[in-house]
Amino acid sequence: MHVMILGAAGMVGRKLVEKIAREPMAFGRPVTRLTLADAFQPQVPKTLRPVSTALTVDLAAAGAADRLIEGRPDLIFHLAAIVSGEAEADFDKGYAVNLDGTRALFDAIRQAGMTSAYVPRLVFASSIAVFGTPFPEVIPDEFFTTPLTSYGTQKAIAELLLSDYSRRGIFDGIGIRLPTICVRPGAPNKAASGFFSNILREPLVGKEAILPVSDSVRHWFASPRAAVGFFVHAATIDTARIGARRNLTMPGLSALVSEEIEALRRVAGDKAVALIKRVPDPLIERIVAGWPTQFDAERASSLGFKAETSFDEILKVHIEDELDGRIA
Amino acid sequence: MHVMILGAAGMVGRKLVEKIAREPMAFGRPVTRLTLADAFQPQVPKTLRPVSTALTVDLAAAGAADRLIEGRPDLIFHLAAIVSGEAEADFDKGYAVNLDGTRALFDAIRQAGMTSAYVPRLVFASSIAVFGTPFPEVIPDEFFTTPLTSYGTQKAIAELLLSDYSRRGIFDGIGIRLPTICVRPGAPNKAASGFFSNILREPLVGKEAILPVSDSVRHWFASPRAAVGFFVHAATIDTARIGARRNLTMPGLSALVSEEIEALRRVAGDKAVALIKRVPDPLIERIVAGWPTQFDAERASSLGFKAETSFDEILKVHIEDELDGRIA
Repeated sequence: MHVMILGAAGMVGRKLVEKIAREPMAFGRPVTRLTLADAFQPQVPKTLRPVSTALTVDLAAAGAADRLIEGRPDLIFHLAAIVSGEAEADFDKGYAVNLDGTRALFDAIRQAGMTSAYVPRLVFASSIAVFGTPFPEVIPDEFFTTPLTSYGTQKAIAELLLSDYSRRGIFDGIGIRLPTICVRPGAPNKAASGFFSNILREPLVGKEAILPVSDSVRHWFASPRAAVGFFVHAATIDTARIGARRNLTMPGLSALVSEEIEALRRVAGDKAVALIKRVPDPLIERIVAGWPTQFDAERASSLGFKAETSFDEILKVHIEDELDGRIA
Repeated sequence: MHVMILGAAGMVGRKLVEKIAREPMAFGRPVTRLTLADAFQPQVPKTLRPVSTALTVDLAAAGAADRLIEGRPDLIFHLAAIVSGEAEADFDKGYAVNLDGTRALFDAIRQAGMTSAYVPRLVFASSIAVFGTPFPEVIPDEFFTTPLTSYGTQKAIAELLLSDYSRRGIFDGIGIRLPTICVRPGAPNKAASGFFSNILREPLVGKEAILPVSDSVRHWFASPRAAVGFFVHAATIDTARIGARRNLTMPGLSALVSEEIEALRRVAGDKAVALIKRVPDPLIERIVAGWPTQFDAERASSLGFKAETSFDEILKVHIEDELDGRIA
């Protein structure tokens, strides 16, 4: 099968590529062709090089979507996006990529299907940013999407298009709303949510990390490994089970910052916890207060999507996948 | 003030124009300029001719939105749309007008605001077609929008854009989701929902009407007068009371077909009721079964939006507004 990943150079995109490299039969059929596209040059693991094409593409550029779909991929992962902060700061760029780029992709599939039968599976990375405060304590699957950012608006619109195009049989789409990914690998991130990962990842390698909010902040998490699992499951699930409501809030772990810290203590001791420096930041406190903290992701769970159920598990995944099983 | 009505030749648009003709101070300030636009030539009531411009415009045409906004209307009613059946049959036309035309309008306002301060009030006619079955018995304000038509998808997307553009201060928008309008004036309508009005309007003037569904069908109604009231209230309300969630399900009357018929009997007697011919139509039964039947429109009600509370009232409005108070 021909698999295409848009946003292949992003964190989750790279993890998904690595998964395919490790498990070429992850989708039940051999991946005989792999197209990796991103605004930045995607890396291709050595074992996948014979079947891969890596493209640097601006999805918003004229004709870009049509060229991507020319090869008629059987399975498309669409993770390409201008991130939240940038989409808020740059109105035109956010709408051009996250809305127009996505629609161009969907329409390119429609056009391809007009010449000869073509109905690929399409898995779209949506976000819990489609929700906007105020929230009930636990957000149910049927809660309305009232985003409070342009990024969340663009994701919510893409979800609607995905459902309509799927209903019309243009493609077979699933939108998956990812929790905040934790522990994010790599260098400390400047995103407002970065500290959730920083306070675990940095102490585990003997480095200090800043905690800008109180221990009693609650948030919604899944590991990078769980995120990759969501994409693989969405790629292979029988969509007849999903019906018309194609966008699913993924399961996750609702946990307090204090629970993160206690899990770190159990794994790496007081010495690691002592590396967390409390430096309250009212701006970050305020931003985080507007985020959802807990979902009842009943539909996705009943469809077989799985996330971690404790921070001990999330830490274990990080130590296995990023630190070769060793901690400092 | 300069008022613009897009979709001024449609049923509700015409009623709104008539309202302004009758009550030039309906918006609290005199209407010194009125721009009426539609794909079909709008009619201008005689008393409004000195201040009015009537335009035949395709909102989806290049540059159309910019030209409409050149005159910087203070208050914009956006009721222009390709209707549900046509948007379903003609994918391109529906998306071009209902999505791209709406976005072009919103962006024209944004562009105008970049040269000098311009933040008009914008009232958008949305629809309960943003909802898709299955429903709870009573749909709450926080229920998610999972449309099952391209029309409903386009309305739901326009709602999201309206909220985001309002949040950014580009305009001051309100989206109002209208119930099914009943009694629709004019000739019997071929829309699947036409019979709800036909079975009242036609017998009141001594004509037969066909009822294609059972008496136990429930639906969600408001009169044309109530609809105009929603638009006027949305034009004048203090939007600080609405906050970020700019799209409101309007109040309405949840009633059975049998309640319609009994109200008709009270007003016009058994002779009128005898003019309703039962001709079951399985297709219409099936379409109607997918429609919402009842909302708890708590937010809109608390914000002062008002609809009828019985079919006797709805009939009274029709007889007053369409039949000069007389029945056959």
